[in-house]
Amino acid sequence: MSKYIQRAADIVARIHELAAISEGAPGITRRYGTAAAVEAGRKVMEWMRMAGLQVRVDAIGNIRGVLLSPEKGARTLVIASHIDTVVNAGRWDGPLGVLMGLDLLESVAGWGVTLPFHIELIAFCDEEGVRFHTTYLGSKVVAGSFEKDMLTRKDEGGVSLAEAILKTGGDPANLERDAILRGQWLGYFEIHIEQGPVLYERRIPVAPVKAIAGQVRAEVIFKGVAGHAGTVPMDMRNDALSGAAEFVLAVEELARTSGGGLVATVGKLQIVDAASNVIPGEVVCSVDIRSADEGVLSWGHERCRGLVDEVGVRRGLKVQWNVVQTSPPVICDAEMNALLGRAIGAAGYEVLELVSGAGHDAVPIAAVAPVCMLFVRCYKGISHNPQEHVETEDLPAAIAVADNFIHQLSETWKYPH
Amino acid sequence: MSKYIQRAADIVARIHELAAISEGAPGITRRYGTAAAVEAGRKVMEWMRMAGLQVRVDAIGNIRGVLLSPEKGARTLVIASHIDTVVNAGRWDGPLGVLMGLDLLESVAGWGVTLPFHIELIAFCDEEGVRFHTTYLGSKVVAGSFEKDMLTRKDEGGVSLAEAILKTGGDPANLERDAILRGQWLGYFEIHIEQGPVLYERRIPVAPVKAIAGQVRAEVIFKGVAGHAGTVPMDMRNDALSGAAEFVLAVEELARTSGGGLVATVGKLQIVDAASNVIPGEVVCSVDIRSADEGVLSWGHERCRGLVDEVGVRRGLKVQWNVVQTSPPVICDAEMNALLGRAIGAAGYEVLELVSGAGHDAVPIAAVAPVCMLFVRCYKGISHNPQEHVETEDLPAAIAVADNFIHQLSETWKYPH
Repeated sequence: MSKYIQRAADIVARIHELAAISEGAPGITRRYGTAAAVEAGRKVMEWMRMAGLQVRVDAIGNIRGVLLSPEKGARTLVIASHIDTVVNAGRWDGPLGVLMGLDLLESVAGWGVTLPFHIELIAFCDEEGVRFHTTYLGSKVVAGSFEKDMLTRKDEGGVSLAEAILKTGGDPANLERDAILRGQWLGYFEIHIEQGPVLYERRIPVAPVKAIAGQVRAEVIFKGVAGHAGTVPMDMRNDALSGAAEFVLAVEELARTSGGGLVATVGKLQIVDAASNVIPGEVVCSVDIRSADEGVLSWGHERCRGLVDEVGVRRGLKVQWNVVQTSPPVICDAEMNALLGRAIGAAGYEVLELVSGAGHDAVPIAAVAPVCMLFVRCYKGISHNPQEHVETEDLPAAIAVADNFIHQLSETWKYPH
Repeated sequence: MSKYIQRAADIVARIHELAAISEGAPGITRRYGTAAAVEAGRKVMEWMRMAGLQVRVDAIGNIRGVLLSPEKGARTLVIASHIDTVVNAGRWDGPLGVLMGLDLLESVAGWGVTLPFHIELIAFCDEEGVRFHTTYLGSKVVAGSFEKDMLTRKDEGGVSLAEAILKTGGDPANLERDAILRGQWLGYFEIHIEQGPVLYERRIPVAPVKAIAGQVRAEVIFKGVAGHAGTVPMDMRNDALSGAAEFVLAVEELARTSGGGLVATVGKLQIVDAASNVIPGEVVCSVDIRSADEGVLSWGHERCRGLVDEVGVRRGLKVQWNVVQTSPPVICDAEMNALLGRAIGAAGYEVLELVSGAGHDAVPIAAVAPVCMLFVRCYKGISHNPQEHVETEDLPAAIAVADNFIHQLSETWKYPH
């Protein structure tokens, strides 16, 4: 491992250098198209150039560096993650994958071998979608699935996405030219912090990702009758909050006892016209349901919807179930995962396949290419928070696995696949 | 009853005339010290003068009209309610008591008898306390319990209560001069809409109030650990909302099964930094506990506090219980209630003694004088809402009872009591 310690230190130094670029303090904030995001992109471009890559900014603002294979008709392995952040973010979510990818390409260049495929390192410009309330703007351009009607979306200041793209020097009229077409892909590899507590609890530094959970997000409304908290006897009430409380607990119980890796969360709950001396007449809440198994997800969706109806009938409340968003699970490529598992085993670690409950750029890419991901343990699973942290000791492990993975891929991969 | 029908129609006409005076539409809004509140006061003053009362505005802005008894050392019976309102209020809460009192004094003047006590009709200027987040500013001045440190309280616009009093022509330096001293009182009589559904459900137009519930208001905080809704397995969660949901249901169950007229309500519930994809890390909610029985109220307080602790232990949440306000129950005067019961019986109605779950101006007055209240049925118990409504048919009943009550009081009351 000792040969990886210097590389780990270099990665950490770059993580900190990138973290210094922010829209403001405290924490790190780099939303798509802001001066901070553009500056961070320039910094990554500079590092890519120093690594000897052919570098460009594409039409939406992804930073893309290529290590070309001399082989004719070679396919492309994309190694990528994102460099935009949520508001008041940590420094690891996104940049870790980009800077480990950069380190990996620097390492590959030193091997003195001819790769049978191109490697394109991409720093996606918008994964978090904070500014325009979108998802995966950068990787959708690369996957060729960018939805043009997104261009008219406006941020809080009234600036449209098209205007924001132009302002950063991009070209909203030519986004589709930057897609990697289906036949050009070898596959997609992303290194990312887990953003959950499983590796931390299990004391394992890295893990392959078996699948990325699908998701159903719904808005649930319970309507009862508002009333005076002092004058309406308990047996004459129609309390919307009591109904919502039963739903919160039933959803939790459902997910806890379902098996199948179902998780379900009520993250928002608002009493309409709340006051301490008023019986809640209406409650609006959210429910977020996820599973990597499409059948389990669909069962969870139906059961949660059923729970709402049951509460409504039991308590005489009017209920509404509005689906806000659904996305199916993404299954990572079995062959690439087998290689990744061998690479982890060779580095001396237990292979624990994880399901990613969070979405990643691999989701849109999976529509056009085989994808795989390597998760790196993060402190207590804390993420989207300035406390987000990766222990420096975990990086040599991740570096060894990534090196090993690319090495094996270059040895085993034959064109046409 | 037919002789009361014209009087009822006159009361309703005045209710509507007063309702036209508002800070703005829709609904009625007359917060303390606003131009609308002052104008409403002038209107009531004019009506009092027309009724032959000696009228003045006191130092805080209560409108006070006196029908003097020629008897030496006569005590004072106060008949009162308030003319300020909540925001977007109905037209009956408060004005009904003032305008029925006015009608009653007009009626008494026509009896041609010499009363053995003075009657003072008061339109309190601030019962709802919306503007300065206070309680009973008007009646506390009359009870002599106005707290001087209230004068520095500021409204949303930064205007202090002292400034607001001056602006309406009042005198913040001389509020205590307007108290009715302990030895001067005969008692206090207030007519008010029930603001609850019991009379509506039981099909009875009026009822005497046995007691006004005491109240405990507390803020409850549940602290768990925020986390990503997709990445934290169900068995590794510390969801503050689940804890709060258990509390909401346990509080409801406690009040429903306790007997003793205990009501308890969680009216506010806020998730700190809520997002649909974040496991709630902290929830702040309110609990409002009321009972007319001091022992039951104190037991309910302790049990609710205990429920919070139990949830905390069971779920590994940090909890906090902060008492915001407590007020003891007020027991209405048994002798006055006996008279009121006889007056209701004489008018041909069942006597159903109610507990008032809402607070009233009778609460501060009860510290210095015997108090009694007559509740009038309101449509479905709806109040603090433009839909608040009293059926015109119920007013003759209320008028008959009030006439009868004052008549009996004048015949049975002997000085010194």
